[in-house]
Amino acid sequence: MNPDFDPESLKVIAFDIFGTVVDWHGGIAAEVERALPGVDGSAFALAWRAGYQPAMRSVMARIASGEGGFTLLDELHRGILDGVLRDFGAEGRLDAAALHHLNTAWHRLPPWPDAVEGLTRLKRRYTICTLSNGNLGLLTEMAKRGGLPWDCILSAEVFKAYKPDPRTYLGVATVFDVAPSEVMLAAAHHDDLAAARVCGLSTGYIERPLEFGAGQPKDVSPRPENSLHVRDIVALAERLGC
Amino acid sequence: MNPDFDPESLKVIAFDIFGTVVDWHGGIAAEVERALPGVDGSAFALAWRAGYQPAMRSVMARIASGEGGFTLLDELHRGILDGVLRDFGAEGRLDAAALHHLNTAWHRLPPWPDAVEGLTRLKRRYTICTLSNGNLGLLTEMAKRGGLPWDCILSAEVFKAYKPDPRTYLGVATVFDVAPSEVMLAAAHHDDLAAARVCGLSTGYIERPLEFGAGQPKDVSPRPENSLHVRDIVALAERLGC
Repeated sequence: MNPDFDPESLKVIAFDIFGTVVDWHGGIAAEVERALPGVDGSAFALAWRAGYQPAMRSVMARIASGEGGFTLLDELHRGILDGVLRDFGAEGRLDAAALHHLNTAWHRLPPWPDAVEGLTRLKRRYTICTLSNGNLGLLTEMAKRGGLPWDCILSAEVFKAYKPDPRTYLGVATVFDVAPSEVMLAAAHHDDLAAARVCGLSTGYIERPLEFGAGQPKDVSPRPENSLHVRDIVALAERLGC
Repeated sequence: MNPDFDPESLKVIAFDIFGTVVDWHGGIAAEVERALPGVDGSAFALAWRAGYQPAMRSVMARIASGEGGFTLLDELHRGILDGVLRDFGAEGRLDAAALHHLNTAWHRLPPWPDAVEGLTRLKRRYTICTLSNGNLGLLTEMAKRGGLPWDCILSAEVFKAYKPDPRTYLGVATVFDVAPSEVMLAAAHHDDLAAARVCGLSTGYIERPLEFGAGQPKDVSPRPENSLHVRDIVALAERLGC
């Protein structure tokens, strides 16, 4: 635990979602293999996710230049999907309804095995919410299917700004009328946590060594700048005495 | 049941909150009597609530004229409270912390006795959300304290528009990617339901004869234009086979 971090002052824990609370790699790979027999689900999932950062940067650039508006993650995913299907030689194998169903596989991602128990314990003492670039409909369906007991679903869609824009991290504090230091961002990604820290939030790093699948284990070494470093969400609850 | 209403097509039920799901009159009256002994809690609650419509109209007029921005309900309540305290000769009796606490009594309103059971049953089959002019922080704290099992908390704060603006009713359909006719607004107020109906939503009227307290029973006669008319939220669940 970082010595500057005071757990007593914590009131709200906002969770990154993809990779932190749910297993996008496993969930997408499984749905791809069902929808497109013969396609390598793991490679497809990695390619689809790899398209996310460039697509998001391009939306943010269009917004900054005044040429574009806020775009839902469902739409971004759909745009990326077309290219991935081409790259995997699977163009034309799915009709419109099947494409829509596959695109909404992101709504059906399975929680990591510790997520429901950890969140349920944290909810007793803290306000727990999402803070994701995923859209509200996506996050709601995911929570409903997976039993994720959020007190509130917050999203880029609420703030009309995407992480790592400060309006998202500071927006959580404003919504709940607390100081930024009374909010923790919990995430499996150091860049997300770094952006939250600049805004004054405390930060909890969640190890997810298999975020990219068993074939690509991730370095989950601690970094001293985070307020907390834990194995999973149950460990976060334990560390915070819940 | 209105013959044009097809319960099979329903996917989302959005609930008005104040008066429909929670008892603002009883909750505010009780907190006022605790905070200000000797003051008539019921009369104070009615006066505070009566200030809401004029305050909301004035915010909407300022926004329409370009002179004002979106204002949280917490701020509106605080502005009205000062006047009500003056009218009740209670100016100066509360310090800043006590005033803040009293103002957030709206976060702590008790659910009507049928609300938690009814919502829990409806949630099994439908996506259930709030659609209130209350701010997200207020609605989240209310849900957490009262055990209201929302799938998602939607608010004027998400749409940056207040009911009865069509952007709020249509916004629910957009968030969940469904047709307006697949959304029902459930409310104890015919004007709210009428505005939703113009947008193509189906409408469920919830009787709350004691919304204004036992001293001012409300006419809760059915009106044929609503898709459904029910006694309470448990009755709504029963009518929909949940």
